[in-house]
Amino acid sequence: MTPADLGALQRAGLTWFPSGQVALRGPLLRLAEACDGAFARLAAAFDADEERHPASLPADRLLRADYLRSFPHQATFPMRMVPEEANIEAFLDGRVLDGDGHVALAELSPVSDLLTPAACYHLFSAHEGEDLVGPLHLTTRNTCFRQEAEYVPLRRLWSFSMREIVCVGSKAEVEGFRQRVRACVDAFLQLIDLPIEWLTATDPFFQPQRNPKHLLQRLQPVKKEATYGGDLAIGSMNSHYDHFGVNFQISRDGEPAHSCCAAFGIERWLFAITDRFGTDPARWPALEDAAVQAAAMTMGARV
Amino acid sequence: MTPADLGALQRAGLTWFPSGQVALRGPLLRLAEACDGAFARLAAAFDADEERHPASLPADRLLRADYLRSFPHQATFPMRMVPEEANIEAFLDGRVLDGDGHVALAELSPVSDLLTPAACYHLFSAHEGEDLVGPLHLTTRNTCFRQEAEYVPLRRLWSFSMREIVCVGSKAEVEGFRQRVRACVDAFLQLIDLPIEWLTATDPFFQPQRNPKHLLQRLQPVKKEATYGGDLAIGSMNSHYDHFGVNFQISRDGEPAHSCCAAFGIERWLFAITDRFGTDPARWPALEDAAVQAAAMTMGARV
Repeated sequence: MTPADLGALQRAGLTWFPSGQVALRGPLLRLAEACDGAFARLAAAFDADEERHPASLPADRLLRADYLRSFPHQATFPMRMVPEEANIEAFLDGRVLDGDGHVALAELSPVSDLLTPAACYHLFSAHEGEDLVGPLHLTTRNTCFRQEAEYVPLRRLWSFSMREIVCVGSKAEVEGFRQRVRACVDAFLQLIDLPIEWLTATDPFFQPQRNPKHLLQRLQPVKKEATYGGDLAIGSMNSHYDHFGVNFQISRDGEPAHSCCAAFGIERWLFAITDRFGTDPARWPALEDAAVQAAAMTMGARV
Repeated sequence: MTPADLGALQRAGLTWFPSGQVALRGPLLRLAEACDGAFARLAAAFDADEERHPASLPADRLLRADYLRSFPHQATFPMRMVPEEANIEAFLDGRVLDGDGHVALAELSPVSDLLTPAACYHLFSAHEGEDLVGPLHLTTRNTCFRQEAEYVPLRRLWSFSMREIVCVGSKAEVEGFRQRVRACVDAFLQLIDLPIEWLTATDPFFQPQRNPKHLLQRLQPVKKEATYGGDLAIGSMNSHYDHFGVNFQISRDGEPAHSCCAAFGIERWLFAITDRFGTDPARWPALEDAAVQAAAMTMGARV
């Protein structure tokens, strides 16, 4: 991103923090709300129930989801200092901050949670042990945390907003959902004139060559990314097969349930829309109207 | 809270996590949205500009805001393991989780940020160095983190949603804002028939007896809490005098700016409303309508 691009984004309401985070106000904040509103409209076309989950989830859940062993290098842990008086006094008697702005921590308490790495993990954990009588359609939004080697405004962030639409059900139900969401998202992108390519992708596993999940992703593509400008994934469709059904004992028709999610990284949509249409809000597409229309075109008159 | 109360809340959409967090769905999620919508209506009556800030902020900012030395026992730090391959391998070669569900961490990287302890700190930091030509009215919502000795569903949480309405300006402007917000909130509470008492409060400083800020709060009350049921603060009005104006070099008419905030803890409103009206949504008050009406009654025809 050139300084001129960043300047235009700042005038539209972006503040960029070197920690890999953004603040939003004015036009860009309204655009972020409109993006999420549009995704919520797409979710509504599937009668998806909304859930709001906490900022973190227990490490044992993420171990079961295979996250903790596959992406330990990206994890963020919410930690505290041992709250005993002597320990906090030791902190206050010390430097508090060192010369580099790092906190001069006293002894830390053990940690059992990770800050949310992807919004949908909460959903599988919340529906653990359920025997489904029909397909489950859910939607949720959360702030997600991923440690990276470097950060780029709106493109690669340490913390960002992710909206997901998820189906859990039989293999056929989930495959039908996958096809309909894909059609819905394609219609939406066409209506707002935002060109993307669907590319097969793999997740950034730690030591991918040694991780059987990475090998599986290469042999049997499970992740397709809606890629803007050749290299920016603004959405992804992820087929989990029965991975979460098995690990969270969610069943459908006596078998481990299958699942699939569509995930949208909201800040990346801000990048794509301002890159294509500029930073003048008058030139931005009417996202929520387009989502309603896309849903009606692909799903019939359900919305 | 009795098990029966918790059961009724669970049927209305609450999931309680022993980490001190909640998930919301169904009626309670819609009620949480309506609460925030109502507070946003009150903010709109002051033409407050909305800002959305990241999940964390730099420790040096919180040192300047006096948070890091006053509440180190409540702080949560977002930490990662040193990402070098050998360190992550050591983590994976270890137990990963111990028998208590604690993460068996390898070496941690230094940390420069704290997870947001109160939504308004971001605002003072974002407006650092500004020379105001008129009063600044802002509103923001964030997930806030406060470590406590124990947690109670909807009443005392480790992470929760806070909406704030803030004025930064001259002493007279801020005092006028404080009076109008207070009148607006009182009218709103009366319209929805939610009885509270405004009680003078102090913040939970570490070693309060040794903290001059705590002494100041006792001598010169700066914090009033809208207290439901005798002991639950569902909102607070905080007069900061020129504390943030001085520490973030925000000036008005050549003097350090004064500031004041009204803060609302959304999950506590869920407790108060369900405690008073029950868990049947048909009996809940129309919050957004009441907020519009309260604003019109106290502010004139600005909304």
